[in-house]
Amino acid sequence: MTKVIIALDIMGGDRGPHVFSSAVTKILSEFPFVHIVLCATESSANDLITKVPSHLRAQLSVEACEQVVDMQMKPAFALRKMKNSSMRRALDLVNNQLAHGCVSSGNTGALMAMANYVLKTLNGISRPALVSSLPTRKDKKVLLLDLGASINCDAENLLQYAVMGSVLQQSCGEVDSPKVALLNVGEEDIKGNSVIKHADALLKECAGLDYIGYVEGDDIFAGEVDVVVTDGFTGNIALKASEGIAKLVIEEIKSLTKETFVARCLSKFMLPLLKNLYQRMNPDQYNGASLIGLRGIVIKSHGNASAEACYYALKQAISEINLSVPDRIRTKIEKELLEH
Amino acid sequence: MTKVIIALDIMGGDRGPHVFSSAVTKILSEFPFVHIVLCATESSANDLITKVPSHLRAQLSVEACEQVVDMQMKPAFALRKMKNSSMRRALDLVNNQLAHGCVSSGNTGALMAMANYVLKTLNGISRPALVSSLPTRKDKKVLLLDLGASINCDAENLLQYAVMGSVLQQSCGEVDSPKVALLNVGEEDIKGNSVIKHADALLKECAGLDYIGYVEGDDIFAGEVDVVVTDGFTGNIALKASEGIAKLVIEEIKSLTKETFVARCLSKFMLPLLKNLYQRMNPDQYNGASLIGLRGIVIKSHGNASAEACYYALKQAISEINLSVPDRIRTKIEKELLEH
Repeated sequence: MTKVIIALDIMGGDRGPHVFSSAVTKILSEFPFVHIVLCATESSANDLITKVPSHLRAQLSVEACEQVVDMQMKPAFALRKMKNSSMRRALDLVNNQLAHGCVSSGNTGALMAMANYVLKTLNGISRPALVSSLPTRKDKKVLLLDLGASINCDAENLLQYAVMGSVLQQSCGEVDSPKVALLNVGEEDIKGNSVIKHADALLKECAGLDYIGYVEGDDIFAGEVDVVVTDGFTGNIALKASEGIAKLVIEEIKSLTKETFVARCLSKFMLPLLKNLYQRMNPDQYNGASLIGLRGIVIKSHGNASAEACYYALKQAISEINLSVPDRIRTKIEKELLEH
Repeated sequence: MTKVIIALDIMGGDRGPHVFSSAVTKILSEFPFVHIVLCATESSANDLITKVPSHLRAQLSVEACEQVVDMQMKPAFALRKMKNSSMRRALDLVNNQLAHGCVSSGNTGALMAMANYVLKTLNGISRPALVSSLPTRKDKKVLLLDLGASINCDAENLLQYAVMGSVLQQSCGEVDSPKVALLNVGEEDIKGNSVIKHADALLKECAGLDYIGYVEGDDIFAGEVDVVVTDGFTGNIALKASEGIAKLVIEEIKSLTKETFVARCLSKFMLPLLKNLYQRMNPDQYNGASLIGLRGIVIKSHGNASAEACYYALKQAISEINLSVPDRIRTKIEKELLEH
């Protein structure tokens, strides 16, 4: 396997840099061809290194940075003033081809602004999109995008999201001909605002996509489609509302197991089952939202991600690097959107 | 108790008129002061009446209609051509003060268009909103609006939704000073599009509301706020996405109970627990979305509602009638939005 270099910004997350140590250890031992460049203040990098078994340390190097983009910083400020930050340095490494991709759990707005500025979008793509894989009621996953990279978007943007999502689901998701749908408030042709209707017309004309039309909010998780396309405002809210209700249901089940005597007795049997459920629903394994449409690979790990979640974000980076996702998107965009 | 007259359109739902028979029976025996006017074709009305115990039939009358608005009909067509439909007749009864409120499980788009045309909005309200009560992680419910009455909306509309939601939560939800929040993609002031930011400014100025600022999608179900305000596109998708994931989690639990031997043995103990959970999460009890902001009471029962769900929709109508919700909204709107 060719060497894979990942620039990892360990600074910005809510839980502090140490949360990455076990994820880094696990990745380096599982994937001996992976090299990680820790983008961090010198002390944080050293702290982390001491927690990684010594025989793996040869797969690590440090890009020492003085600045840290914090979670409250405005994107425009971070872009202008944080040129020596761990986040910016990780992106620079990708841009200078010193890393094949980067992972950050820092401030999402700042990461998107910086990534856009440093890496630039691919030819034919106006804006990058944040995309993540989610569970469905069938035995497969669905990609939802945009999850909030841009708040306002037009029909052309939605078309580009559809093409990018389809490529990602084809490569990382291993779906031959991904079914793509537009998120709307009804399945009938008359539903939706003018942007949606225009996007629907553009998608119908796009020969290289298996576009199936509109789906509603509950269809995201039905497992009938592989890619669901929407604007960043709606996508972000749909995703978070779903996380909210999933948390509610799971808490509810846990509290039910405590309510009755029989349930309390059963709870020791039920706990492994619940754990099993958690495993499949676990937001951790859906960590590692990809910022796609750029000339480089950028993975956004959740700010509050656990060690396990950080592991999945790194794995997502490795997968996108091995599959050359940006190249595949470029090729598809050229074929579907630029040749006409 | 004063007599309460409800006009009930039993025609338009997906499951056919008969689904209402047990709901009607239950309501009439529980609430002897309620009278229901069945708006239906003569044969459907008679069918239903035969299923209601004879001692309750004095509480029923029939408004025989020749036309039925079907689920696929476009709102504009229904408005122009369906003047003798059960749906229209139910609204006419409310408008002519022959009923105190109406319930329909028919075509939502048509119902909203007709209700708006027949009943008109209250002074100071530009558009009605569809609102429903949802479960939270605390021991209370939250109101989410708009769920799709209008797709596009401006800051003034959002302000009006906030006032209406607050009144509804205060009267039907019995919350003294409801906490109102705007749904956004982040809690920071810099987040969101221009409509949201403008609405935020208007809400901050509105003295009669306990406005707490922005909340994100997962906060809808956290139980920290009483009313969550958003546009109809986002609200509809947030609601349905949540329904989708809740269905997924519950199916997942059910299938887990079948997977292992121990689980299979436990399932007969677990089923009552699951039933209990269902009960609290049951979308049926959240049936009966109110179309508020009109000069009359209109309850939209889900098109695919079960008999139990129809019961809750009727109960919601009784509650809004007893509390004179439109009068309360008018008073609050006059005080908060028109006196300045």
